[in-house]
Amino acid sequence: MLWFTEHWTENVGLTVRATEVKRIQSKYQEILILDTPEFGKMLVLDGLIQTTEKDEFIYHEMLAHPAMLMHKKPERVLVIGGGDGGTVREVLKHETVKEVHLCEIDEEVIIVSEKYFPSIAGKLKDPRVKIFIEDGNRFLEEKKDYYDVIIMDSSDPVGASEVLFSEDFYKKVKQSLRKDGIMVAQTESPVLQENYFKKAYSQITKVFRNVGVYLAYVPTYPSGMWSFTIASDYVDVSSASVNKSRIDRLETRYFCDKIFDCLFALPKFVQDMLKKP
Amino acid sequence: MLWFTEHWTENVGLTVRATEVKRIQSKYQEILILDTPEFGKMLVLDGLIQTTEKDEFIYHEMLAHPAMLMHKKPERVLVIGGGDGGTVREVLKHETVKEVHLCEIDEEVIIVSEKYFPSIAGKLKDPRVKIFIEDGNRFLEEKKDYYDVIIMDSSDPVGASEVLFSEDFYKKVKQSLRKDGIMVAQTESPVLQENYFKKAYSQITKVFRNVGVYLAYVPTYPSGMWSFTIASDYVDVSSASVNKSRIDRLETRYFCDKIFDCLFALPKFVQDMLKKP
Repeated sequence: MLWFTEHWTENVGLTVRATEVKRIQSKYQEILILDTPEFGKMLVLDGLIQTTEKDEFIYHEMLAHPAMLMHKKPERVLVIGGGDGGTVREVLKHETVKEVHLCEIDEEVIIVSEKYFPSIAGKLKDPRVKIFIEDGNRFLEEKKDYYDVIIMDSSDPVGASEVLFSEDFYKKVKQSLRKDGIMVAQTESPVLQENYFKKAYSQITKVFRNVGVYLAYVPTYPSGMWSFTIASDYVDVSSASVNKSRIDRLETRYFCDKIFDCLFALPKFVQDMLKKP
Repeated sequence: MLWFTEHWTENVGLTVRATEVKRIQSKYQEILILDTPEFGKMLVLDGLIQTTEKDEFIYHEMLAHPAMLMHKKPERVLVIGGGDGGTVREVLKHETVKEVHLCEIDEEVIIVSEKYFPSIAGKLKDPRVKIFIEDGNRFLEEKKDYYDVIIMDSSDPVGASEVLFSEDFYKKVKQSLRKDGIMVAQTESPVLQENYFKKAYSQITKVFRNVGVYLAYVPTYPSGMWSFTIASDYVDVSSASVNKSRIDRLETRYFCDKIFDCLFALPKFVQDMLKKP
C-alpha cells in the first residue's frame, strides 16, 4: 500500500493513502498528482498538498468571496498564484466581473490542472480570463491603479513565494489597486505556522489602514485551521456589510451569509497572536 | 525516530513524532502516554488521540462553556466520560456550580491523567467533584430530575461508547435533567465521520425539542473540524443570549463572547447534512 506523508512540521504530518501517482518536474518545482481514496485527486507541489477534489471548495470559496463581496462592484480582479484555477472559478461567480487576470509563475501547474483537475481549472478558458506566466512581484510593477480586488493565492512562503509575504510586495499590491480596492491573502496556519501568520499580519498592517483576519476549516492543510488576511485603505473590512441577495446568488458549498456575518469571530488565542507582534 | 499514526479512516491519518511512550493495558482499553515535541504530552486510548497538552483547551472549553452559559444558574453538573478531567476543570470555572459528578467507566484513565496530565486533571480533587467509576448508561437510571447540565465527553462511538450515541441513552439523559436542563455531546467530525455526526443529530432530535450543532477547530482530532450537539426541551439553544459579564469572567484561551455569538454559523455543507437525515 502506498502512503504519502506531508510533513506539516518536522514533528507532525498528514498521511494519505494513494492508489496512483504521477510525477512531473517543472522548472520551479516537483508536481505530484495523487489519486487518493479519501480526498479524490490531489495536487502536491514540492511535497505540500495544494488542493484536493474533496475539500478544495472550502479554501477557494473562503479566499475569494469575502473580498469580492466587500467591494461594491468588482470588475477587474487579479489572482496571483492559484494556477489550479479554483480561485478564478469562484471570482467568476460574481456577475459584475469583466476581467480576471491570473498571474502564475509556473505554467506547468496550469497545464497539469487543466488536464487532471477539470472541475477546478475548468473556468480558466472563460473569455473574461487572461493568463500571465510571470513572477507576481514583477507583474505588479506594470499595473498601477488598476484592480478592484487582488487575491494572493500563493503557496507557502518558502522559495519562489517568500517575496509574496514581504512589506515591499504589499506596497506594490496597494499601488496596483484602485482607490477603493481590496486585497486578500492566504496567510498560513496560526496553529502550526504562527510566525508566518503573524509576520504577514504585521507587514500588511504597515501598508493598509484596515486589516482583518479570518479562518476556515481546511482538512488537508496544516492543523486544519487556515487563515486569510484581508485589507483595504478605503473599505473598513472588519465592519463591511453586504446586501444578502448578492451572497444568496452565489452557488457555494461552504460560504454563506452566516459565515460572512461571523467572519471575524476569532478564537481568543488567535486574537492574542495579532496583539503581540 | 519514533512515529505514532492515528488512522482517522483507513485512508488518512495523523502522524506525530514521539520521544517517549508509556503503555498501560486497563480492563477496557490500551492507554498510551506519548511525549511529543509538537503537542506536548498526549493521551491515546485504543489508538485514538484523546487529548494533548497543546490543544486540549479548545475541545474542553468548547464542550463545556456554551451549555453552562445557556443555563441560567447551573448548580449540578454531570460529565459522562471525560476521565482526563479537562471538562470538569472548565465546568468549575462557573461560580454557580455546587456539585460536579464525573461518571467514567475506566478508573485507569483517571489515575493516568492525575499522574501524567496534572494541568488537565488537577481539578478532580476539588471538593465539589464526586467521581463515579461506572457505566454512564447505567448510572443515569438512578438519577431522575437531578442535573442542570449533562455533558457527554465520550470517546468515539465504538466499543464501550457506542451506546452513548443511541436514542435510548438520550432519553435517559433527558430524564436525569431537571425541567430546564441542557445537554451537550461531542459528536465527531462532519468531514470524516459524517455518519456518526448525522446519527447523533437525528437521535438527539427525536428526544429533545431544541437542538443546535456547533463546531470548533481541534487540530489533533480527525480533519480538525469537530462537532458538538447541544439540546434542551426548555431552553431554545439556538437563540439563547447570555449576559456578557458571565462570559468575560471565564478564563479561557479559545472561547469568548464573539465565539459564543457566532456559535451556530455553520458552513453550508454542514447545514445540509443536518437537513438530510
